[in-house]
Amino acid sequence: MMPPLMSNAKLIYDSTERNADLYYATHFEAPDNILYLESRGKKYLILSDLELERGKKEAEIDTILSLSAIAQKAKKMGKEGMVGIIDTLLKEFKIKKMTVPQSTSFALVDALRKKGYKVEAGDTPFYIERTFKTPKEKKWLRESQKTVFRAMALAEKILKESKIKSGGLYWHEKILTSEKLRFEIEQFLLQKGFHNTMQPIVACGLQATDPHCIGSGPLKAHQAIIVDIFPRHDKTKFFGDATRTFCKGKASPELKKMYAAVKTAQEMAIQKIKAGVNGKTIHQAIVASFEKEGFKTGTIDGCKQGFIHGTGHGIGLEVHEEPARIGPRDFILKENHVVTVEPGLYYRKYGGVRLEDIVCVTKKGCERFPSYPKRLEIP
Amino acid sequence: MMPPLMSNAKLIYDSTERNADLYYATHFEAPDNILYLESRGKKYLILSDLELERGKKEAEIDTILSLSAIAQKAKKMGKEGMVGIIDTLLKEFKIKKMTVPQSTSFALVDALRKKGYKVEAGDTPFYIERTFKTPKEKKWLRESQKTVFRAMALAEKILKESKIKSGGLYWHEKILTSEKLRFEIEQFLLQKGFHNTMQPIVACGLQATDPHCIGSGPLKAHQAIIVDIFPRHDKTKFFGDATRTFCKGKASPELKKMYAAVKTAQEMAIQKIKAGVNGKTIHQAIVASFEKEGFKTGTIDGCKQGFIHGTGHGIGLEVHEEPARIGPRDFILKENHVVTVEPGLYYRKYGGVRLEDIVCVTKKGCERFPSYPKRLEIP
Repeated sequence: MMPPLMSNAKLIYDSTERNADLYYATHFEAPDNILYLESRGKKYLILSDLELERGKKEAEIDTILSLSAIAQKAKKMGKEGMVGIIDTLLKEFKIKKMTVPQSTSFALVDALRKKGYKVEAGDTPFYIERTFKTPKEKKWLRESQKTVFRAMALAEKILKESKIKSGGLYWHEKILTSEKLRFEIEQFLLQKGFHNTMQPIVACGLQATDPHCIGSGPLKAHQAIIVDIFPRHDKTKFFGDATRTFCKGKASPELKKMYAAVKTAQEMAIQKIKAGVNGKTIHQAIVASFEKEGFKTGTIDGCKQGFIHGTGHGIGLEVHEEPARIGPRDFILKENHVVTVEPGLYYRKYGGVRLEDIVCVTKKGCERFPSYPKRLEIP
Repeated sequence: MMPPLMSNAKLIYDSTERNADLYYATHFEAPDNILYLESRGKKYLILSDLELERGKKEAEIDTILSLSAIAQKAKKMGKEGMVGIIDTLLKEFKIKKMTVPQSTSFALVDALRKKGYKVEAGDTPFYIERTFKTPKEKKWLRESQKTVFRAMALAEKILKESKIKSGGLYWHEKILTSEKLRFEIEQFLLQKGFHNTMQPIVACGLQATDPHCIGSGPLKAHQAIIVDIFPRHDKTKFFGDATRTFCKGKASPELKKMYAAVKTAQEMAIQKIKAGVNGKTIHQAIVASFEKEGFKTGTIDGCKQGFIHGTGHGIGLEVHEEPARIGPRDFILKENHVVTVEPGLYYRKYGGVRLEDIVCVTKKGCERFPSYPKRLEIP
């Protein structure tokens, strides 16, 4: 008897909003879970009647199959629910073994294994090749980042136009709040065809010492204001991500020193980035450089303070994309990885400072994606 | 020997953006995966140094634990990665058996089972009680829906203000496109403190016959324009969801007949909704009422046409929320379920019509959430 054909099947059952690999494989967007199968080098998308026609137009795959047609077959054989449908599909394709994303629901995998299928975990990301950006993807990342910097320029302009009155900021005669500045940034991004999966950060004073606090209430003069913008382009689906720290008015000597240390650390990190380098050594070099300047990381007055996050993360179809990291874990950077470089310092006494750009790793170093000036004080 | 205390532990490892149950349990938002444990009636959130301080302020739980502290203990015992951290945590809590969301990564569950833990699948949603909306949650849904209708009123106003020139629409002397109308809707929502996890639908003509096509290009006179708006409130996190179908100028007799049939069907469905009723019977009644009016569902000219989606879905912290459905599957509606009611008809020859409102199921019928007039033609 001839051995069966090698079946290197891949199966994804998820929504394209949650699963960037599913979007990567299909270039199709759907709000609900859809079923995707890769078998013998061909791509299949199994869509409900609701998505069928749009799928034929929009999805970049080989064949679209009708979910309701397979569901009918499944029903005739007494097979129920999504597991019954997947079982019917796999039997038609003579698939007994498959690779699925690690994020796949264990309830689904348990049910498939119970039916005798062998289910194995794929890489993270599932399409590991998307870690290495193609020229087209780099172009999209550069374009997204360019728009992020235009939004940053708008934020800086608004801060520049604002007037200081008894410690508060006024723009067009009205109190300037985190919410208002964020709205202006978001409105601009909307006009340019971008959406925010999470809102931009506009955090001032004590709020800026919490790196993920998005900020609220009136902005204050003479204090650090962190602006972190990371929207996704509606068409390309690629994210941009950049952070600048501003201070409207006069920065304290401590804040100035923190800013200088972060700027120097970021510059040093960018100099060190190159294919073959371990991200951990870069992160450790930043920690060492901060400590040398007197900026310690640890628990101070019961709170974690200092440099309390990683130096950088992969970016692409996800804003935080695995596996690329510059941080406390080992990770060897490779050519065409695109990562953020974003050291920061956070002290409850003085405020928070973070500077973030994105770079593409090359053989000889890294290519900086469009940049934007770094100015702390805004007169 | 005394038997060990019953440990009804619940564990979630996910991001609050992807997992509405995790947000429901903690009222904490984080962009990356966080670890949550419920043991002996107490809630624990295990946060990285980056999220620790914000968690203490924002999360509604009993105790925050430091991820880095547990990671250190794990490392001392030679345990690696997130599995090592979870293992260390569970040992400290003397937990051997736990319930996790069905969506939990099978790779994680496989690793925990390998270490001897018993992992079981919870309900969907994990906190089944969030299916039944509390008075506060109903208020939030009503508020979200109210803003959706204000955005709908803006869309209708823009269509009203538009001028027809050789079949196209002009607003403020410029061609009115799907993109422009969508931008105006989104800008309004942004101002009101709402975000769109997926963009509103503004689809005209043939595009409107694809229920999930968001629409692009110039809007046309005398054709159906479907406007479907489903944003989430930034603070409460509750969605609204409403659809209206407009026609700038004169609708064809066929389109008018479709619109009347959908309006009648929606009204009939709302009349039938009440605790104890099977959603399937309501859906089937709509299908029958459409067929009686001559609107068949099926493959026409090779495309699925007619009433090609379900009648309604649960809504709350998710825009499509399990398990409530009014559709081809059996589902018994219960008091305090909140569902959409959105019959539609889609024919490539005539266009698409959908009307959507949300209602809360009561013992005697249903409470309509703030409504908005239904007018097809806009002069």
